[in-house]
Amino acid sequence: MLGQMQQAPLLLTDILRHALRNSADQEIVTRLVEGGMHRYTFADAGKRIAQLAHALTDMGIGMGDRVGVIGWNTHRQLELYYALAGIGAVCHTINPRLGPENAGYVMAHAGDKAVFYDATFAPLAAGLAPHLKSVEHYVEMCPEGQVTEVPIETQSYEALIAGKAEEYDWPTFDENTACAMCYTSGTTGKPKGVLYSHRSLVLQCIVSALPNSLGCEQGDVCLPVVPMFHVNAWGVPYTALLLGMKLVMPGPGLDGPSLHELIVKEEVTYALGVPTVWQGLLAHVEGNNLDFGKLKYSLIGGSALSEQLIRGYDKYGVKCRQGWGMTEMSPLGTINVEPEGFYDLPIEERVKRQIKQGPAVPFVDMRIVDKEGTKLAHDGEAEGHLQVRGPWIIDTYYGFEENALTKDGWFDTGDVAVIHPDGVMQITDRAKDVIKSGGEWISSIDIENAALNHPAVMQAAALGMHHPKWDERPLLVIQLKPGQEADFKEVQEFVNKQLPKISAVDDVQVVDEIPLGATGKVLKTKLREHFKDYTLPTAA
Amino acid sequence: MLGQMQQAPLLLTDILRHALRNSADQEIVTRLVEGGMHRYTFADAGKRIAQLAHALTDMGIGMGDRVGVIGWNTHRQLELYYALAGIGAVCHTINPRLGPENAGYVMAHAGDKAVFYDATFAPLAAGLAPHLKSVEHYVEMCPEGQVTEVPIETQSYEALIAGKAEEYDWPTFDENTACAMCYTSGTTGKPKGVLYSHRSLVLQCIVSALPNSLGCEQGDVCLPVVPMFHVNAWGVPYTALLLGMKLVMPGPGLDGPSLHELIVKEEVTYALGVPTVWQGLLAHVEGNNLDFGKLKYSLIGGSALSEQLIRGYDKYGVKCRQGWGMTEMSPLGTINVEPEGFYDLPIEERVKRQIKQGPAVPFVDMRIVDKEGTKLAHDGEAEGHLQVRGPWIIDTYYGFEENALTKDGWFDTGDVAVIHPDGVMQITDRAKDVIKSGGEWISSIDIENAALNHPAVMQAAALGMHHPKWDERPLLVIQLKPGQEADFKEVQEFVNKQLPKISAVDDVQVVDEIPLGATGKVLKTKLREHFKDYTLPTAA
Ligand SMILES: Nc1ncnc2c1ncn2[C@@H]1O[C@H](COP(=O)(O)OP(=O)(O)OP(=O)(O)O)[C@@H](O)[C@H]1O
Ligand SMILES: Nc1ncnc2c1ncn2[C@@H]1O[C@H](COP(=O)(O)OP(=O)(O)OP(=O)(O)O)[C@@H](O)[C@H]1O
Ligand SMILES: [Mg+2]
Ligand SMILES: [Mg+2]
Repeated sequence: MLGQMQQAPLLLTDILRHALRNSADQEIVTRLVEGGMHRYTFADAGKRIAQLAHALTDMGIGMGDRVGVIGWNTHRQLELYYALAGIGAVCHTINPRLGPENAGYVMAHAGDKAVFYDATFAPLAAGLAPHLKSVEHYVEMCPEGQVTEVPIETQSYEALIAGKAEEYDWPTFDENTACAMCYTSGTTGKPKGVLYSHRSLVLQCIVSALPNSLGCEQGDVCLPVVPMFHVNAWGVPYTALLLGMKLVMPGPGLDGPSLHELIVKEEVTYALGVPTVWQGLLAHVEGNNLDFGKLKYSLIGGSALSEQLIRGYDKYGVKCRQGWGMTEMSPLGTINVEPEGFYDLPIEERVKRQIKQGPAVPFVDMRIVDKEGTKLAHDGEAEGHLQVRGPWIIDTYYGFEENALTKDGWFDTGDVAVIHPDGVMQITDRAKDVIKSGGEWISSIDIENAALNHPAVMQAAALGMHHPKWDERPLLVIQLKPGQEADFKEVQEFVNKQLPKISAVDDVQVVDEIPLGATGKVLKTKLREHFKDYTLPTAA
Repeated sequence: MLGQMQQAPLLLTDILRHALRNSADQEIVTRLVEGGMHRYTFADAGKRIAQLAHALTDMGIGMGDRVGVIGWNTHRQLELYYALAGIGAVCHTINPRLGPENAGYVMAHAGDKAVFYDATFAPLAAGLAPHLKSVEHYVEMCPEGQVTEVPIETQSYEALIAGKAEEYDWPTFDENTACAMCYTSGTTGKPKGVLYSHRSLVLQCIVSALPNSLGCEQGDVCLPVVPMFHVNAWGVPYTALLLGMKLVMPGPGLDGPSLHELIVKEEVTYALGVPTVWQGLLAHVEGNNLDFGKLKYSLIGGSALSEQLIRGYDKYGVKCRQGWGMTEMSPLGTINVEPEGFYDLPIEERVKRQIKQGPAVPFVDMRIVDKEGTKLAHDGEAEGHLQVRGPWIIDTYYGFEENALTKDGWFDTGDVAVIHPDGVMQITDRAKDVIKSGGEWISSIDIENAALNHPAVMQAAALGMHHPKWDERPLLVIQLKPGQEADFKEVQEFVNKQLPKISAVDDVQVVDEIPLGATGKVLKTKLREHFKDYTLPTAA
């Protein structure tokens, strides 16, 4: 027997409508690509989103069309998010740091019909244009008359929307309609496309807005440092409107000084981003004797949050919350919201929990399995392949015939994890990066965390290197902080003291720069190439 | 084009699973019907819910079967909520205060296959049994060996579940499957059945858990005084598990002293109920020089929250939040969460907002229309019939052929309201109770609020009485506080001073007791009967 309630689809338009109705006067502040700041209200945004929807419709863009966006976090990209979704089109955000080859690949693969780009990326767009058959329109997200001179036919965003009607009669359609698209960051191969639906993003938005998920509160001012091309800036452009929070968009200014200025001036209380960004910001604040203004929380995810970062921010009263997710998960999987009374504990106790990835949010199911796919216990001991399922988790990659799931319907994350009895999940590694020593698995994250605790270490990466007896043994690669020197032996001792014997690193090597991928993650593939002729001293 | 995310149904089982995984040690405390207190953890509840599901299955109850429940808010009823929904059956909660005739009517109408009742309601159940053809099983929610002697075949709940397996392999099914059922309180006619789906209750649960809806926070201890037979206790049995909040169940103790004891001993921070309950509790605390312990919020809905109640609780530092909803809305429509900085305002300013019903929660759409169905402005001036739509709003009453909606898909609430430009909605009356004076509408809620401000007034009801010139003019009926006396003329002056001239009451009458309906609302139908031969002095 079915219930007899209304069949109202869950659409992103409902979030916009709610924001306009209940928080019309709330502010969105943007550091502009063209220089200066831009401020307006949700109500103003609503009008421009309607104008943009009219412009898109006039360009012949409609249901199911993919539109590429290569840009910084700005109010204009926010407008694209809502206008495209609102008319049933698909906002395909492109990570410019992927490099022209990969960017061109994903745009061709997605079959983008139009491309919106920031001035910064005009050369990238223009360079790709000759190879992109599907693209009919190019638009630079800039003021009228300020289009960067490039050898393609293009127009300015502001001219495009100027004069259009400020209301749009948003259509209603199936909540499973596609609305956004993002390719994985390609750290482990060619990027693969994930096609989000209204339903999946609305649900992940509501759930991430719960007090025991992101934990945003009334009056929070939200700064998504995480790019809008990195899994929809983790959904913040939706969550902020749902909760009526002031939204601060950093534009191209992702360096320490720019972010710091924004946090202090705009009274940011809740910021989100990957560890490398938080590292840069912390160094700036420490180096210049500054503070973090009203910042209360930084949500950190995308790669592991280190003890060193937690301690660094703790000194300033900023609480680091770790989140774990994936492009394939929209991205929300776990958030390590502190249990009640957590901040009464001493920091030594707290870091132990904070370096874990956290408990799953509602409606996300997690399990760990062994090589054969047998379910392992959630006892904090067993380590296995982490698999997930839920309403905002991928079924099938874009353009693939077969789904991406196990026979019994779970998605294998490619991560290796332990699940504790209280539901808290802890990633020990990517399956590809796990160091296999004498039949046991060594966590490279544990080693890297230990290394980052060293005052001279800026970046760290542990690699499993061939060993004749143990199969693999860990090599620690470090990048030093500018102007710092370090004694390899001393670093090795410092690190090994913190680790169980089996995880003790066999050697330490320094490189000038540990290569980072398009989303600020260590590129172990590149690093492995660099060390392909290296032999561990213990293996000689 | 459809998105390519997993098609995971939204089921109440997911909320239970989440609670067991992330908050296994959280507590549920119940004042037992059989006397004494009962405490256990979410983990314990999970086991008993599984046991109950096995027992129900063994009784032949399955997908689509309706099971009647006549009981107080207890852990056993909570178990029924989840076990019935989990196996795809329908939990039909019955309001015992409806009286035997109405209770029998709704049970027969629903076609309940089994009935679970508390000892208090054994006579009611036994009395109805001969008339209920569909019921195959009676279960008293009591310990083994303590079944009340009644002339029907019955068994004890504890014996029923004893020894069953403590795990249940919950099935997966369409999220639109029915899971719960509630009849309207019948203040305006025969009760009508509303059949909730998993989808509708899950969505209303997540949305009510948002920080700008109920506004519960980590560490809150939740007391649903609102009965579980009154629109699922406004969803609290779901929300508490979703957020991992300690849940305190008042059982049959809804009087001031019992509630007060529970609030203080169990350190309740967030309580929910109808105004009459809050009135009783306040009188008890005031009369005995007590305080409210750790209580921070009382969410008040079901009928209008009065200024007098807001002020009464404000003195004790307890914040009154008004909610508005209906059985047909699962019930959540609006919650008047205070904007930022609200509590910096003086009380005079605050009450003006707090007596309003509040802004709509996300995904609920509201509009006001005139008699002809033309949409009216949300300008804080225009007053019209309030209509709603959204994913947890009724489509069709149980057993009806035609849907309950307007031609363009809205549900008419039967309420008359104003919507302010900031989205805040204010009920002025039920359409049936509106006082029509010379072509204008007078709000009976305004008059009642003004009357309740009088120190001697306990309950108030405004009725539109026939008037030869104006069509109708307001009569104010009051019930005095115990031991209080009042001069009619003085009350009339006191009230009229607070009202616009057109709303000034033409007369005041005192009754011993204003009749309340099954959910603590003034029964105007009864009151009108009482005054059917009365003539206004101004009409003579
Ligand atoms: N808090 C975290 N701690 C550790 N690892 C994390 C955390 N958050 C995310 N990750 C890692 O990032 C991955 C998801 O990243 P994303 O979807 O951006 O692309 P990618 O996996 O880096 O790229 P590709 O799949 O193309 O190789 C996770 O599978 C996990 O390995
Ligand atoms: N905060 C509130 N302020 C004023 N009225 C309220 C409030 N909350 C609920 N109500 C009234 O209660 C009604 C919903 O109550 P409910 O669904 O319990 O049954 P009922 O309408 O009283 O019964 P029936 O529909 O059978 O007559 C609303 O339509 C509204 O009139
Ligand atoms: Mg990946
Ligand atoms: Mg009603």
